Amino acid sequence: MYSDSLREEFRKAGVKEGDTVRVTIDGLSLEGELMPKPEIGSGSTLILKLKNGYNVGMIYGKGSKIERLKTGSSDISFPKASIKPSKGLPRVLILYTGGTIGSRVDYKTGGVYMLTKPEELLHSVPEISEVASIDVKHLFSIASEDITYIEWQQIAKAIAEAAKDGYHGVVVTIGTDTMHYTSSALSFMLKGINMPVVLTGAQRSSDRGSSDAFLNLLSAVSIAAKSDAAEVGICMHRSSSDNECIFIRGTKVRKMHTSRRDAFRPINDSPLLLVKNGTEIEKLSDYRTVNEKVRAPAPSVKGGFEKKVAIVKLYPNSDPGVIGYYVDKGYKGIILEGTGLGHGPVSTDHKEFLWLPAIEKAVKDGVVVGMTSQCIYGRVHPSVYRNLRLLSNAGVIFCEDMTPETAYVKLAWLLGNYTPAETREMLPENLVGEIKSRILYREFMN
Amino acid sequence: MYSDSLREEFRKAGVKEGDTVRVTIDGLSLEGELMPKPEIGSGSTLILKLKNGYNVGMIYGKGSKIERLKTGSSDISFPKASIKPSKGLPRVLILYTGGTIGSRVDYKTGGVYMLTKPEELLHSVPEISEVASIDVKHLFSIASEDITYIEWQQIAKAIAEAAKDGYHGVVVTIGTDTMHYTSSALSFMLKGINMPVVLTGAQRSSDRGSSDAFLNLLSAVSIAAKSDAAEVGICMHRSSSDNECIFIRGTKVRKMHTSRRDAFRPINDSPLLLVKNGTEIEKLSDYRTVNEKVRAPAPSVKGGFEKKVAIVKLYPNSDPGVIGYYVDKGYKGIILEGTGLGHGPVSTDHKEFLWLPAIEKAVKDGVVVGMTSQCIYGRVHPSVYRNLRLLSNAGVIFCEDMTPETAYVKLAWLLGNYTPAETREMLPENLVGEIKSRILYREFMN
Repeated sequence: MYSDSLREEFRKAGVKEGDTVRVTIDGLSLEGELMPKPEIGSGSTLILKLKNGYNVGMIYGKGSKIERLKTGSSDISFPKASIKPSKGLPRVLILYTGGTIGSRVDYKTGGVYMLTKPEELLHSVPEISEVASIDVKHLFSIASEDITYIEWQQIAKAIAEAAKDGYHGVVVTIGTDTMHYTSSALSFMLKGINMPVVLTGAQRSSDRGSSDAFLNLLSAVSIAAKSDAAEVGICMHRSSSDNECIFIRGTKVRKMHTSRRDAFRPINDSPLLLVKNGTEIEKLSDYRTVNEKVRAPAPSVKGGFEKKVAIVKLYPNSDPGVIGYYVDKGYKGIILEGTGLGHGPVSTDHKEFLWLPAIEKAVKDGVVVGMTSQCIYGRVHPSVYRNLRLLSNAGVIFCEDMTPETAYVKLAWLLGNYTPAETREMLPENLVGEIKSRILYREFMN
Repeated sequence: MYSDSLREEFRKAGVKEGDTVRVTIDGLSLEGELMPKPEIGSGSTLILKLKNGYNVGMIYGKGSKIERLKTGSSDISFPKASIKPSKGLPRVLILYTGGTIGSRVDYKTGGVYMLTKPEELLHSVPEISEVASIDVKHLFSIASEDITYIEWQQIAKAIAEAAKDGYHGVVVTIGTDTMHYTSSALSFMLKGINMPVVLTGAQRSSDRGSSDAFLNLLSAVSIAAKSDAAEVGICMHRSSSDNECIFIRGTKVRKMHTSRRDAFRPINDSPLLLVKNGTEIEKLSDYRTVNEKVRAPAPSVKGGFEKKVAIVKLYPNSDPGVIGYYVDKGYKGIILEGTGLGHGPVSTDHKEFLWLPAIEKAVKDGVVVGMTSQCIYGRVHPSVYRNLRLLSNAGVIFCEDMTPETAYVKLAWLLGNYTPAETREMLPENLVGEIKSRILYREFMN
C-alpha cells in the first residue's frame, strides 16, 4: 500500500498507475511509466519503468515532486481466474498470506507484485481440482520477512477454524524467508492438531518457466488432501529437478540457500513424506498420524507468545554487554547461538570478551537462557560440563538438537503460555517432534 | 590454571593432584581423587574422581572447604615424547595453540586435559617424519571458543616469521569451535602469503580409537610440506570414514556439525585439495599457487583489527533497538544476518519490529553495515531492491556469497587497517578468494 501522503500526491497530480510521469527527488528527475505498487519497499516507494525498459525504484519524500506527462492505459491488471469446487474430493483450505508464490512478474512492466486475487494461484495448476475440493481464504499479503508473531497467531486461529469446519487438511501459502520460523510457531501453537498442515511457497514467482510454485502447491495440496500426517510441516522441492517435493517436520527444517528451489532442508531429521510428480505420496519416516475418531473437534490453540525473547550469537570478540541490553529491556528469554557443542567465551583472559558473568547475571535475574549451536547440525550438550553445570548456578539450558530458530520460537511460545519454571522444564523436552533422542547418520546435509 | 585463591587453598590443605580429598561446597561433601586441572572451566573449577569412577566438576567458592584424606601417587603425567628432525625433507612448522587435537583423555582419570608438551602430538603419527622435517612451536593453549583477535594477531605474526625463516609451510593445530573464524582472519591478515598455511584440529581427542587427530594432522603436514597452494585453509575429514581429508579455503568454510569428524564443509565453494591416506594429494579446484621465485621474503602482516564490530541477526519479532545499543557503544561496523536474499523486517506495520529506521540511522552515523544471509549458502543481492538502494540513503552493503562469519571478520579487519570509505569499497570486493562471481551447482551441502 502506498502511504496516505503519497496517495494524496497522486491525487493532487491526477496520476494513476500506468500513466507516464516525471518524478523529481533530490534534484534528480526521471521520466517513465508508473508501475503497480510492488509488494516490497515502504509506503513511499514507487517504481518507474524508464524508456530504456529498466525499472527503477524511488523513495518519495519531502520536497519530491510527481507530474503526469501522459495518461496511460489501465491495462496492467491480471487475467481473471476462477475455481470450481470439486465434489466428492477431500476438502482442503488454502490460506493465502503473500510471498513469492502469490506474486507474479508482469511481462509488460517487469515488476513483481502480489496477485490481486489468491484464486489466481490455482489458475495455472488445473491438476489441483482432481486432487481436492479447494477453498481459498485470503488472510493477508505480507512478505515473509515482515511477518511477526501477530500474524502467526492469525494463521493458527484460521487453521483451528478449518479443523473445526471439517477440512481434511490446510495449505498455507507463504513467503519463504521466514517460513521455517512460522512452521515452528504453528507446530507449537497447534500442538495436537489432528490434520495435515502444509506450508509451501516458491523461490521463483509463479509465472516464470522455471517457477517451483506449481509443483510445490500441487504437492502441498496432495499432502493436505490425502496423507494421514497429523503434523505441521513444510513442502518444497527435494532437489533442483522439478518432479519431487518433500514434506519436512515444521520444527526440523531450515532455509539453507538464498535462491535454490531445494533450499529447505531437514535438520537433524529425515523428511516425512516424498511427493512424486505432485500427487504420488510415499512415506519416508515416522510421524504422528491422524486419529480419525476425533477428527472434527478443533484443537485448542495455545497462541500466547512472549515477544521479549532474543537470539544472541557468540563469536570471537563478541560483546557480552548485549546480554545486559536485553535484560535491562525486560527480556524474559535468550537463546544463545554458541559455538561447537554449545560453547562460548567463558574463560578467556580478555575480560571484555568474557561472557560468563553476564550470562550468570541474566539467569539470576530470572531470564531463561537456552544454548544452541551455530553449527546448525548436531546436538549441543554440556558434556564434561554437565557436572560443572549441575553444581553451578549458571543455569543455562542446553537445547539438544534444536536449531537456534526452533529453540527461539519454542522459548518465546513457552514463556507466552507457561511460567518461567515450567518453561525451564519444557525447553529441553520434546513436545511436538522438535527434539530427537538420536540423529541418524544420513541426517547431515541431506 | 587454578585461580590464585584456589592454589592458596591447596597449599594450606597440603593437597596436590592425585591426592584423595574431601571437598565441601554449600554443605555438600564429596570424596574422591583430585584430578588434573581440566582445560575447560574457570580457575575455581576442580574435578574429583569419585569412588564409583564418575568424574564430577565442582566450583570452589567462598566458604568451600578442601581436606586431604590420603596422599596420592604423582603418576598422572604423560609419557615423554620426542621428535627427530628429518634431514632433506621440506621444513614444516607446527604452531600449537591448544584445542582437542592437543588434548588427551587420561585413562586413569577419565579427564580431558591439555598435552604438557606439544611434541606429544607427533608421538602417535610416526608417518609425519617421513613427510616433513618438523619443528613445533608452542604459541599458547587456549580453547578455541576463547580465542580472540589478539590470538589471531599472534598466530599471524608467528606464520610471517616462519615464512621469513624459509619454512615450506605452516600447520596450525587449534580448537575446532571457531577455527573458521581464525582461518578467515589469517586469510586477510596474511593476504599475499606465499606458502601453504593449514589449520587443523580434532573433533575427538587424540588418544581415542575413533580420533580424527592423526589423519588430520598427517594430511595437514602433507599439504604444508608438498603442495604448491599459497592459501590459508582448513584441513579436516572429508567424510566420516577415516581415509580422506579435504583442504578448504579459509574464507569459504564453516563448522556445520557439533560433533562429526566431517563437520567442516566448504560453503559456496569446492575443496581445493583432497588428501588420501594422509599423504596422497590431489587437486580438486583452482587456487593461488606458490611463486617459487619470491619464496623467502616474509609477507607483510596487516594485523589491524577493529574490535567494535558486531554480528546482528534479523528474525521475526526481533528488536531493532539492538542496533542503537551498538551505535551508542561506538561500534564501527555491523554485519546483518538477514533472511533469504538479504531481507529483514523493513516494511512491517508493527513499528516495534521495524528495522529500517535503526539501520538508516546507523549508516548516517558512519557505521559500515553489511548484509549477509542466515541461509548460509547462496548469495545475497539487492535484486529489485538494487535501485531502491542506489537511490536511497540506506547504504547497506550486500556481501555477495560470503558467510556471515567471513563477512564479520573481513569487516573488522578492513576497519582495523583502512578508512571507513575504503572499507565500504572493499567489503563487497574479492580480496583473498572470499567472494566468487559464480557458485557451482554442486557447491551446496557438499
